[in-house]
Amino acid sequence: MSADIIGCIITCFQVKQAGRGKNMATDYEEILGTAISAAANLKPRNIYFVGCGGSLAYMIHQQYIIDRETEIPSRVLNSNEFIHRNPKAFGKDSLVVLCSHSGTTPETVAAATFARQKGALTVAYTYAENSALWNAAEYPVLYDWGPESDAYNHKSGMALRFIFGFLQAMYPSSVYKTAIEVTKNLQSIYTTNKGKFAEKAVQWGSTYKRSPLIYTMGSGPVYGEAYSFAICLLQEMQWVNSAAIHSGEYFHGPFEITDYDVPFLLFKTVGETRPLDERAEAFARKFSKEVTTVDAADFDWQNIPEGLRTYFAAPIFGAVTRVYAEQLAENRGHPLSVRRYMWKMQY
Amino acid sequence: MSADIIGCIITCFQVKQAGRGKNMATDYEEILGTAISAAANLKPRNIYFVGCGGSLAYMIHQQYIIDRETEIPSRVLNSNEFIHRNPKAFGKDSLVVLCSHSGTTPETVAAATFARQKGALTVAYTYAENSALWNAAEYPVLYDWGPESDAYNHKSGMALRFIFGFLQAMYPSSVYKTAIEVTKNLQSIYTTNKGKFAEKAVQWGSTYKRSPLIYTMGSGPVYGEAYSFAICLLQEMQWVNSAAIHSGEYFHGPFEITDYDVPFLLFKTVGETRPLDERAEAFARKFSKEVTTVDAADFDWQNIPEGLRTYFAAPIFGAVTRVYAEQLAENRGHPLSVRRYMWKMQY
Repeated sequence: MSADIIGCIITCFQVKQAGRGKNMATDYEEILGTAISAAANLKPRNIYFVGCGGSLAYMIHQQYIIDRETEIPSRVLNSNEFIHRNPKAFGKDSLVVLCSHSGTTPETVAAATFARQKGALTVAYTYAENSALWNAAEYPVLYDWGPESDAYNHKSGMALRFIFGFLQAMYPSSVYKTAIEVTKNLQSIYTTNKGKFAEKAVQWGSTYKRSPLIYTMGSGPVYGEAYSFAICLLQEMQWVNSAAIHSGEYFHGPFEITDYDVPFLLFKTVGETRPLDERAEAFARKFSKEVTTVDAADFDWQNIPEGLRTYFAAPIFGAVTRVYAEQLAENRGHPLSVRRYMWKMQY
Repeated sequence: MSADIIGCIITCFQVKQAGRGKNMATDYEEILGTAISAAANLKPRNIYFVGCGGSLAYMIHQQYIIDRETEIPSRVLNSNEFIHRNPKAFGKDSLVVLCSHSGTTPETVAAATFARQKGALTVAYTYAENSALWNAAEYPVLYDWGPESDAYNHKSGMALRFIFGFLQAMYPSSVYKTAIEVTKNLQSIYTTNKGKFAEKAVQWGSTYKRSPLIYTMGSGPVYGEAYSFAICLLQEMQWVNSAAIHSGEYFHGPFEITDYDVPFLLFKTVGETRPLDERAEAFARKFSKEVTTVDAADFDWQNIPEGLRTYFAAPIFGAVTRVYAEQLAENRGHPLSVRRYMWKMQY
């Protein structure tokens, strides 16, 4: 191989690396823009949102936005279920949106590989450049992470920017333009609302520190946050029993478990499905003394127009309820970082 | 109004009644056939499976069959979520499959009304002729119920006959013909398997009679049965805390709750998603002494060909695990029919 060719390969590699660097706003933009263009150019026949656990939960409001704004069929599926189910409509005209924070979740990496083998277009959110998922997906979308980073470049900001960027590319509208603009202010919205709910979170953490079980409830785009709080924050990080009850399903089974001492944490959203949450809250409060509501109507929405709040509620719930979990952890002397199985063994 | 016209109306009404009578096999056939023809003639652009609680849970394996056998986009949605979410792709080319046992579930009746207003084709399973849902849906499908009835005409048989009848009408195949034929033998399959698992059910009911919480697990077409067992049998009918954990999601949060004394009831299916259940079982058994598996590989499948078992597993699980619930109820002195809120008040 000539020195020229080797030099070219090295230069190309450096360019690729530079274009995917961390902590450089311009690179985030470029990578995201490339993924959006590719997804919009495909004009996907259908969209599969694929991931595991918290990464899966965070797909639920993205799918909700697609469901409300487009006629493109879309689904949320656990990575391993997706591979084994192998839906017949899934193929080369499909868009698959994947996510793994570390980029190492084996089932999600396998799902990306499976999707590429089937000729689908793969977009994957991860904070880890050059991770297995980064390499497996055709269009990895890099997001930032850590205390000094800005929510605009976080998973939550990046996912909203991908979804609204895709919508804007497919069906240009001032609404989507506004939605993208609004994400620039997410960090301030998170910080303000975390502060606004801080005292309530302290109270909640102290009140429920001895509860062996806490149910969560939610609906519509916010069901994913109730699910994430139940399986990641409570079961995984606190070893507290939990289940995420869909507010509409509550009356068809789960409500019979309600009693004066059964704790519920309701993620009461704004927008289309709020009536479901209101109804569940009214009933639960009649028979349980332990109902806590985090109400999106109390959020400081800052510059988010009313019509868009339904789509932005989920990430704000995520930021606010994290404080509730932190307070529970503090009161229980059980840090959120503690695990007994995860990352500690093969499974 | 002349006597002739009144007479005609009465005759028409009687004919309509006769054509939709209960306990008459020919009428079941006729009603079902009409619904299948209408659904197939529509060549639906998409299918929404809509219901609440147990009726919703029973849609999950029907959607799975559609997902594996056709390219028609399909979804499972709680009735109230469906109405409020109002997906953009939902409209006059949509097929909506609804279910309410009593035909009175207000949200499901409202969903049928909403769907008809949008011009969609509505098919509704119910055992109650002339119920609100029966009247709200364009094509009600009547099913039988009670100790003397045959599973062929039960909800489980009728739903499978509708799905495979629809598939056969859309894409004729000897496989679908066989599937329809096989449903005639469902009663014998249920009876045999209930007997086969009876002793294990007695043991399970006795062992877990004092458990305040029992988790269920499942995947693919059988996730709905794990969900139904958790929310209807345990939470609703036994006031036992529960959550249905998807076997693929188990490793991404819920598994951290596993400990030597945490009870799991795993619905281990056959077919595509069995590897997910096997993996969850292997891990759970390592750290909990309280894992019970109901394994579809142990079912007496009688005349169901191997390739179709994945689609028939859910209703057999339903029949078999009902015995588990009955045994738990017996041991706890808490009949499955007892409720504190359901049917007793407005909610």
